[in-house]
Amino acid sequence: MTGPIDTPLGPGKEFDRIRAMAARWGARARGLGDDCAFLEAGGERLAISLDLSVEGVHFTREWLAPAEIGYRAAAAALSDLAAVAAEPVALLLGLAVPAGESDDTVSQLADGVADAAADCGATIIGGDLSRGPGIVIDCCVIGRAAAEVRRRGARPGDRIVVTGALGGPLAALLMWRAGREPAPAARERFARPASRHAAARFLALHRARAMIDVSDGLAGDLRHLLTASGVGATLEVERIPVLPDAAKLAARLKEQPWSFAARSGEEYELLAAVPPEEADAVVAGCPVPATIVGTVEAEPGLRAVERGAAVRLADGFDHFGTP
Amino acid sequence: MTGPIDTPLGPGKEFDRIRAMAARWGARARGLGDDCAFLEAGGERLAISLDLSVEGVHFTREWLAPAEIGYRAAAAALSDLAAVAAEPVALLLGLAVPAGESDDTVSQLADGVADAAADCGATIIGGDLSRGPGIVIDCCVIGRAAAEVRRRGARPGDRIVVTGALGGPLAALLMWRAGREPAPAARERFARPASRHAAARFLALHRARAMIDVSDGLAGDLRHLLTASGVGATLEVERIPVLPDAAKLAARLKEQPWSFAARSGEEYELLAAVPPEEADAVVAGCPVPATIVGTVEAEPGLRAVERGAAVRLADGFDHFGTP
Repeated sequence: MTGPIDTPLGPGKEFDRIRAMAARWGARARGLGDDCAFLEAGGERLAISLDLSVEGVHFTREWLAPAEIGYRAAAAALSDLAAVAAEPVALLLGLAVPAGESDDTVSQLADGVADAAADCGATIIGGDLSRGPGIVIDCCVIGRAAAEVRRRGARPGDRIVVTGALGGPLAALLMWRAGREPAPAARERFARPASRHAAARFLALHRARAMIDVSDGLAGDLRHLLTASGVGATLEVERIPVLPDAAKLAARLKEQPWSFAARSGEEYELLAAVPPEEADAVVAGCPVPATIVGTVEAEPGLRAVERGAAVRLADGFDHFGTP
Repeated sequence: MTGPIDTPLGPGKEFDRIRAMAARWGARARGLGDDCAFLEAGGERLAISLDLSVEGVHFTREWLAPAEIGYRAAAAALSDLAAVAAEPVALLLGLAVPAGESDDTVSQLADGVADAAADCGATIIGGDLSRGPGIVIDCCVIGRAAAEVRRRGARPGDRIVVTGALGGPLAALLMWRAGREPAPAARERFARPASRHAAARFLALHRARAMIDVSDGLAGDLRHLLTASGVGATLEVERIPVLPDAAKLAARLKEQPWSFAARSGEEYELLAAVPPEEADAVVAGCPVPATIVGTVEAEPGLRAVERGAAVRLADGFDHFGTP
């Protein structure tokens, strides 16, 4: 390792800022660029991640109830542990709320966080409470990392696997932005992201060589994984699993369902590169639906094909509120 | 341990909210109430704490340069490790900044955080970057805790020790609020809190039985320590070490210097209960000035005396911006 960034980052303004910070930090930082930081303690390897959820950036109160806001914030943070196949252990909650906020709202936010933690076996062990200009939820999560699965490590020939069905969070966002209520299944995918921890450990057991959770969209996060691994891939877009309500909305918007699904962010599904000889076993045995969507190749770059014909893939999800 | 709160908390609205959360969390939380959470990993004990610094609540840009804002936020978080005599190892930085924020400001904030971490031997290992309505800095800090020094554990007869000289942060705040520039020494105590990690380990070696860092003011934090330990104390107010610039300002405000110093918060000095037989060695050998300011007693409550005569002690620091 020559600098503080351990895993190469792709393009983008947020990554540019992280690169600029890392360049200034030099030896004052290390191991940056993955979904989690790793820390050795007494011969055990811990995975640690910190995730901010900011009112007006990641959510608004018009869309979600306080318990859902808390659940989603914690689930997003815990998903970083799944991305490295670490077993969730503990969570620390930093919570800022406006001065006049009701005790009831604070309790419900806290309840949602605790539910998400309990759903994957983590316990709340501490935190901090402050006034703030809006709700800010900061979750620091800690897990035990038996395997070492990171963003980098994919090799040519590996099959690309994604869990679940995509498009729900984008469908929910677009409906809310249009002033309408999303379809229940799409809303649920946004408000209460499913835990993928069991699937993560299953994928690690099946020798997943690289893994990431889908927060910037399948296309965006696949690019991150490929950049980190120094490889490329072909994505067979007709294989991308699409949530039925998302496919319906895509059709209404005259967009290909696979395109819609590939740019939907904050999915918190897993995207992994698995050795080709494990692909069948992964699809057959994964505790949640798992779909092969493409193949890793030596040539850098992401190529999208629909039944063999090249198609254009939109850029990654731009996150709600990001300019 | 019967509930999620491990160390009893004193009165106050923030503590009321934490108690309410903890009651709801039940078995979904554990070990709350101390300056750090503790986590066992492979036979090692880690101390972990998370601390929010929010623009307009903990600082304003009119008072501090971005690098100072970053330094102070990280120093405040790292101080929680000192409070339990843990050796700083790592820091994760959550940083939210407004949409139009300059790269220069972001870099300077990040520099300040890295300087504070480096000053006590911690390395930045990860974090998260987000848009936000104002600057929010969230530092999660991790240390190795060889000794186990907590808020609770003080016994009757123990001497109460405080490091450094108090009053600087309050003096700086009052001057800024009055639209004036603080005296340099007072400003420095607010902008760049000194690291007390070496002193913390020294106090632990000298069998400190209970310890806390002074964030709510000497009077407030001593009450926290006494409540957590189920004991009381007499504070000899004339012994309280006062920063000369704070004493000058107190005199101008017609306030007793000790009273001013005892209500000054965000000092990040250490307050500890040490066995009486260690008191002389602590004062003589502590790597930073250490002063005996009182004695722990079995009778609950905090009694203040000035040369033997009872005096009234103001309540703890109310934090800038807290209503």
